[in-house]
Parts: sequence; C-alpha cells; structure tokens
Amino acid sequence: MSNIYNQGLDKVAANSQPLTPINFLNRTADVYPEKVAIIHGEQKITYRQYRNNVRRLASALVQRGVKPGDTVSIIAANIPAFLDAHYGVPLTGAVLNSINIRLDALAIAFILDHGECDILLTDTAFAPVVKKALALCSRKPLVIDIDDDVECEEAECIGDIEYQALLAEGDENYQGNFIVDEWQSLALNYTSGTTGNPKGVVYSHRGAYLNAVGNNMIWPINNQSVYLWTLPMFHCNGWCFPWTIVAMGGTQVCLRQVEVNAIVNSLIDHQVSHFCGAPIVLNMILNAETELLDKVPRGISIMTAGAPPPATVIKGMESRGFDITQSYGLTEVYGPCVVSEWKAEWDQRNDDERAALKARQGVRYPTQENVDVLDPDTMKVVPADAETIGEIMFRGNTTMKGYLKNDTTTMESFKGGWFHSGDLAVKHPDGFIEIRDRSKDIIISGGENISSVEIESVLYQHSAILEAAVVAKKDEKWGETPCAFVSVKAGKNVTESEIITFCREHMANFKVPKTIVFSELPKTSTGKIQKFILRAKVKELFGD
Amino acid sequence: MSNIYNQGLDKVAANSQPLTPINFLNRTADVYPEKVAIIHGEQKITYRQYRNNVRRLASALVQRGVKPGDTVSIIAANIPAFLDAHYGVPLTGAVLNSINIRLDALAIAFILDHGECDILLTDTAFAPVVKKALALCSRKPLVIDIDDDVECEEAECIGDIEYQALLAEGDENYQGNFIVDEWQSLALNYTSGTTGNPKGVVYSHRGAYLNAVGNNMIWPINNQSVYLWTLPMFHCNGWCFPWTIVAMGGTQVCLRQVEVNAIVNSLIDHQVSHFCGAPIVLNMILNAETELLDKVPRGISIMTAGAPPPATVIKGMESRGFDITQSYGLTEVYGPCVVSEWKAEWDQRNDDERAALKARQGVRYPTQENVDVLDPDTMKVVPADAETIGEIMFRGNTTMKGYLKNDTTTMESFKGGWFHSGDLAVKHPDGFIEIRDRSKDIIISGGENISSVEIESVLYQHSAILEAAVVAKKDEKWGETPCAFVSVKAGKNVTESEIITFCREHMANFKVPKTIVFSELPKTSTGKIQKFILRAKVKELFGD
Repeated sequence: MSNIYNQGLDKVAANSQPLTPINFLNRTADVYPEKVAIIHGEQKITYRQYRNNVRRLASALVQRGVKPGDTVSIIAANIPAFLDAHYGVPLTGAVLNSINIRLDALAIAFILDHGECDILLTDTAFAPVVKKALALCSRKPLVIDIDDDVECEEAECIGDIEYQALLAEGDENYQGNFIVDEWQSLALNYTSGTTGNPKGVVYSHRGAYLNAVGNNMIWPINNQSVYLWTLPMFHCNGWCFPWTIVAMGGTQVCLRQVEVNAIVNSLIDHQVSHFCGAPIVLNMILNAETELLDKVPRGISIMTAGAPPPATVIKGMESRGFDITQSYGLTEVYGPCVVSEWKAEWDQRNDDERAALKARQGVRYPTQENVDVLDPDTMKVVPADAETIGEIMFRGNTTMKGYLKNDTTTMESFKGGWFHSGDLAVKHPDGFIEIRDRSKDIIISGGENISSVEIESVLYQHSAILEAAVVAKKDEKWGETPCAFVSVKAGKNVTESEIITFCREHMANFKVPKTIVFSELPKTSTGKIQKFILRAKVKELFGD
Repeated sequence: MSNIYNQGLDKVAANSQPLTPINFLNRTADVYPEKVAIIHGEQKITYRQYRNNVRRLASALVQRGVKPGDTVSIIAANIPAFLDAHYGVPLTGAVLNSINIRLDALAIAFILDHGECDILLTDTAFAPVVKKALALCSRKPLVIDIDDDVECEEAECIGDIEYQALLAEGDENYQGNFIVDEWQSLALNYTSGTTGNPKGVVYSHRGAYLNAVGNNMIWPINNQSVYLWTLPMFHCNGWCFPWTIVAMGGTQVCLRQVEVNAIVNSLIDHQVSHFCGAPIVLNMILNAETELLDKVPRGISIMTAGAPPPATVIKGMESRGFDITQSYGLTEVYGPCVVSEWKAEWDQRNDDERAALKARQGVRYPTQENVDVLDPDTMKVVPADAETIGEIMFRGNTTMKGYLKNDTTTMESFKGGWFHSGDLAVKHPDGFIEIRDRSKDIIISGGENISSVEIESVLYQHSAILEAAVVAKKDEKWGETPCAFVSVKAGKNVTESEIITFCREHMANFKVPKTIVFSELPKTSTGKIQKFILRAKVKELFGD
C-alpha cells in the first residue's frame, strides 16, 4: 500500500535502536551509581562497580577472542559472577548458556558439546562434576574458575584462569557495540523435553527485554525493592529477573545455599521485599523455627511457579503476611508469562475459595501477545467452560526463537502458528487458565523438570528389566517425584533398592525414582504403554 | 557472521508479533471485562463495553472505506470517544491525527490539508471553528459529529453522521488485522515548530507501545489506579497515557472542562489516584477553595511537564499531600521520556533543596535508549559540570519516525544520529539534565507551545509595523506569555491595543501577545535580530 506515511519516515539511529536488556544496566548505573546493586554475604557491590565488572568481563572475553554468536557457558550458584554474566556475555554479542548445577557429568558434557561451548565459567563448588564433564565432552573450551571463597571441601580450581584475574584483564570503560539487531541470540537454556536429550532453548535480546518489562508490569519492583535470589539463576535466566531488578534500580541479594536458615536470615537481615521460588521453597520457609519466622517482616512479595502451590502452603504463608503471586511458564517462554492475577473483589471470598482462585495459572502477561487453550487437532480455542481440556499454547514476543540445531522439533512445536506447551488445561468462564495435567512426560520435582523418557531409557539398560514406564507421584515436599513401573524379564530377579542404586549411577540424583512398582504394564492394542492407567494406579496406591 | 545461532531460529507467528498498544486493551478486556474502564459524568463504561465500542468504531470506519495509511483526524475534549479513537483508529491501520482544540480555523485547515485527512471526528462543542476550517481547506473528509450532550450554545452537528450512529454500523466482534509491522504509523501530532507552519510528527506502533510501558516504569499504575484526564489528549496522545492506563487495567475519568472546581470535585468524587498536567493546573488546584481542597484525599500522584513547576507550587502541593513527579519531553519523543527521578536519600534535604532537585528535568526513561546534552557543533557530550550549556538530544525507540512530508526538516533534526530538541540545558555532576533555555523560538504558555515565528509573521502583516520579534515573558499564571517587540514604520502610528486586536483576528487566542514593547530591534552585523538581548530586556522591564 502506498500512502503519505511511506515516505521519509524510515528507521535511523535517532529513532530506532535494538531492544536489549543490557541497556537497563546502563541507565541504572548512570542514575544510581552509588546505590547497592548486589549484596553477597559481607560484600556490597554498587551499580557503578557492577557495570564496571560487566564491562571488564565483556572486554576480557573479547580480547580472548569471543565473537558474536559464540557460546559462553556458566555453571554457578546464585553468586555475583552469575549476575555479571547476564550483562557481560550479551555485551560481547555472545550467547549465555546457563547450566543446571544439579545435572550429572554426562548431561553437562552433552550440553557443552551440543551448545558448542567456547568459554566455560565454572563455580569452584562444582569442580568435581565439571571436571568429569570436560573429560567426557569433545569441546575444549577456555575454562574460567569462579573462586568465590567457597567453604566446601570439593571446591577446586580446574581451569585456565580465575574469574577475578580475567576481570583484571578487562577495561571498565569498555562499551561493546555488537547488538545491531534485537533478534540476535542472548541466551541458551537447556530443558528436559519429552525426549531423552535436553533441547537448547534460544532467547533473543528482544524477548528478554520484553519479559523483563512484563515481570514488572504484573509484579511491581521499584528502586527501594530488595530481591533475594532463592530461584536458581540457571532456570530461564532466573525468569528474566536479573534484567527486571536492574531495570527498576532494585538491589539483588545473592545466596549460595538455598537452605531454610540462610533464606530466612536473609529475609530478616536485608529487609527483603521480593523473592521467587518453587512451592517447595515456600514450604521450607513455613517449616522454619517459629522464633526466627516471627522476625521476618510482613508484606514480602513472593512469586511462585513450577507447580501450583498447595492450598495449605498458600494459607500458611499468607497468615504470616507474605503476599503470594502465582505465575506459570516454561523455559520456552522465558520463564513466567502467565500470572494468576488477583482481583480486588476476591479479597472478600473465604480462605478456600481464595486458595482455589490463587491456584489457577491465570492470564497472560501484557508482554506476551497471546496465550490460550487450544484443541491441538483442530487448533480451535476450547470453550471457556472449566471442563474441556486442551493444550496451553503461546504466541507472542516472549516465545523462544526455537531449539538450537533442532529444526524438526522447533517446527513441530510452532505448528499452526502457536508454541505448543504440552501442558493440558481448561479455561474458566472468566478466561483464567488452569492446568489439569502437566505435560504427559514431564515430572516436576522441587521445581526441576525431569523427563520420564530419560529415566525409562536408563531403566531399560538394566539387565533384569523387561519394560519400564515412569510417571509422576504426588509428594508433600517435592511436589512430584518419579515413580517407575517395571516388569522383570523371565528368569531374572531384581529388588527396588538395586534398581535405585543402578539409577543413581546413571543419572543426576534429583531424577532418580523414589518409588519402584513391579507390575505388568497396561498397553493399547498397538502396544503403546497406557500411562494414564499407571497414573490412576499411583493415586490408588499412594493417594491423591 | 555465520554461527550455530543463524540457522533455524527465525521469526515466525509463534515468536514474533508486532508491538502495538492495541494489544493492551485486548488483554485488559479479557481479564477485567466488568471493571470500569471509563467514567464520564454519570456514565460508566466497562472494559468489555470499551472494547466493543472500539471494535465497532474500527469496523464502521473500514466499512466506510478507511484503509491502512489513511488519516483519521479528531478534534475533541477529553471525552470517551477520544479514548475509543486511540484504539479504534489504529485497529484499522489508519493514523490518528489529534488536533489541538485551541487552534484557530486557519491552523486547523492547514492540518486537515497537510495531513490529508480522510475522516474527521469532531466534538460538537467545537462546531463553529471546525465549520470555518472545513470551508477553508481543500480536503473534503467524511465528517462525524461527536454529540456528547454538550451544554454549550455553540454545539451543533455539522457532519455526515453522528458518532453513536457510526458505532451502530459497526461490529463489536470485529478483530481487524492490519498491523503487520510495528513500524507502521499510529499517530500524527502537529507541533508548532520554529517555523511558521506546524510540523506533523509521526508515531509508530512500536514507539507508542514502548513509551506506554515506560510511563508505568517510572510512574507506577495498577489495576486500582484512577486516572483523571486533566491533560489534553491531543497533546502527544495524552503523553501515551490512554495506552498506559489500559495496559495496567486502571480507570480513566474523563473531564470536558479543565476548570478548577470540576477538577477538584473529580479528585474527591472518584477517589482519583493519578493525573497529569502542566504546572498551571497545579497552580489552579492550589488556589481552589480551602474547604473543597481539604476534602481531597492525600497521596495523589501527579506528573507534571511542559515547564518546570515553580518551587512555591511544588511546596504548596506537597504540603497538601500530593506527590509530584516532574517529567520532560516533546511531541517528537512521544511526550515525556525524561523524568526527575527521586532518590530516597533526598527526602532528608530541606524544602528549598528538595524543590531545586525536583525542578531538574532529570534522566531518561528506561525505554528511551539515550538522552544527553551535546554540543551541536561537535556532537560531543558536554561535561557534567552544571555549567556548560549544550542541546538536549535523544536517540532511541521513543523518538518519532519523522515529520510528515518534510524530509528536509526530518533529516536536519536527526543530524548526526540524534534527535535535536532545540532545548538548551546543562548536565549536573550526577547526570541529571536541567534546562537552561527552552528552544529559542518556542514560548510555552499554559502548557501549549507557541511559535514566536508564527506570531512574528502575523505582526509583519500589519501595515504600521516595520519589524517584529517575539520572546517569552515569565508569567505567574501561564508560565510564559508572548511578548512582542515592534518597531513602527516611518510616518505610521499604532497602539498596543490595536496590535493585540489585529493578532486576535489572525491567530488562536492563546497565541496572542499579552505585551507589546515599542522599540528599535537590536541586530547583529549581518542584520539578524538578537533575541538574547530582547530576553534580557524583558527581565529588566518586568523582572525575572
């Protein structure tokens, strides 16, 4: 279409710049240079120092040959270097690959190879597993130890240079100028999918910027906010909060150990106003010593996701003055992008009704253009009757670019113009979404996704096991744990503890089935294992 | 550069959608269908009704031939139809051209012609001037009367159809699907520049989305907020607040008359939490009857811009419990995109220091990538010494696309990769910007920009006037008023009141000089009038 607006109104430097969360740090460091950006134990880092560290990191990496499109991996607890990496790595145009610290060496090696890691930043606390992983993988990245005064026996330097020495190589006035297109890749986060090998979810600068802004729209932060890092930063880049908190000029409190006393003491000592975490973290806090808990200031805002928090946990935390917001998302949508938005008129409802309303996953962030429950066959939106089950699908700017080097799965997951989450849900008459069944092959335990298929493939390696199928079992503490159904080969014998020991040797600890049920496996006429029957059996055996 | 991130990670419907503020209304109407979106006198419009009206408007316009890139102009007070237009017009892909209700017929006619108006929505309260304008211009737009039960003698229907009848033609389920690129034009706002004819500033969907989000980041709104429309919506689309408030699910209170009792009563009756306005509005409120003022709830947030509010006004309002945020911007940057961000540590300063800090224009919004004070000759940033004067320049996503059909001025204003504001300022050691001299040829009176050049060109038409130059004169009530220096032709006579009467006949009332000084005009050796000498003379004659 030709019209008067098509002439002389083009994009130029003055009116068009790539959206990138890097810019948030520049702004806040300019406005609040002396404000404390990061607290880590006794250490206080101002915004000026934070930006200087970021610039040093970026320039040192560039001097050591990092180029746009390279992969810089990091395995670390919630420590300042991880926050540096959220700005310093993207500033070079490279991609930040945050690796789950709970993975075993084999899984880490797979990620280093698949993600084509060029540089690895590794927290000395995880030296043993990383050393093994490096031996297993074919990549030979430059390894940088983050020696963060860890008081643990296993801490050890295994790399080429220590992090502080690397920073010393850098220039604190470094500007970088590698983000020329907001679609450039910023982050690579591996997720356990329904298949055995993890998939590499790629984020853009644009998406990260927008989800960072969206977090603030539904869960306001300001320059007086103090945010405690209970949520692992390796989960969807800490749900994009390293960018949100900085954009709003808040203070981030690091925390190496997600352990109840450390959390509660941090809440008290730093007058924390906000934190995020899986329901298990809420439950931990609720079970802290009453005396300690009484000292926690009221009015702390919590965002929880990963699984709907049990009503008792919501009620317990609210009676202690915590303000809970439930959100929902996946690695593929930058962490949370659905929120159980609270309506003022619901304040009047009774406890049970309020807990039920709060347990619903909710509605989309303003920054995600569309979230709905669709019938995956017809791609039509299901009726909002709180009964018809469909699949939660996303369409908008906070959906991943795709899976790295995995065109087939990317295209499949984007079929019909929507991202297919695999999560089954209903839509209430008021438009709020409620999950009825998490993705068939994912078990969420303590906030971690576990692939049932991955466990099954290990079980099948056991010489005595004929067939295996793994489903979720409800768990008071962990939300869910893996429960394995196995049938034994004719003439063979095996015990529950033998199987569990076998699993421990072949997968990360958190993935190991807590329960083994010996049984024939129900199948369809075509021989497919009927997991829904197994799920029903779990409820029958162990209660709902 | 070729790397693993360049393959199979493309933009598709699922992960890439155009940023547009239209989407905010969809989200809020989905989540809060029964919530009151708009209050207008006795009328309460829910978000469901609001979206229905918007969809009806869009579909009726499309049925009547409106296409993407057409111009739909509106002349209206702060009434619901104007809020409809902020979504309904962009939904068709057409461009919303909001016209200043204070302009005279000639200026309106110029805008209708220059903007190539296809449809004109006109509030019946402004029938007389619009009728004249339509007679003067060569465009013959479809004219839609907004008959909003105006209680004024001059109200009259002059168009082809009334607004409600137009809505009745429309479809409340209409979706529209015309925004395929976020760079598409959304709004056209004419601004008095330094040249006689107004310039048409063009906004994109992307820029409007981002400034709407930016407003909320620096001045938080939530779904309990009640926003009163004291700021004219025709000013930079109400500084993008029609999009911000809706994004956050707040309620907008319309107000036809910006008159002190109406404002104060609205604050009380609707428990208003937020409003915007030029300092003159603050001053009006402060001078309301004490009895009435005592009933106004404390804690109302005010954003003020247009001119730095006098310290006495700030102090007076704060003592009444209002919370004032000063912002700064121009039509060319979507209204405000600089904010006098308040630091908690300043709370301790004394009244005078606090007022001085608050009077500074401040720092950029997080959503504008760069704002700085540059030497326009060298294009280098001035030292942050609070002394060196430079020009405020902008570079980022909330800078206009350009001036409509005015490539030369667009290119000039974007020279060197920055938008040149024309405003002169210093930069304080803490990075905060403070204006030292507004653009040389702009007078800001009651929040309206007046071009001195435009007044001068009228003065030169007077048969007795030899030379004329107009500068700003400080004014307790209006901030500034135009002061004209004129020299009289040999053998001619003219009085101050004759000149003022002549001006009244040739320009909008608010532009008419309040003061005429008869004098020789000081000139440079090349014959250029030295306005800085005239400004000094104004101070000498009338005080600072």
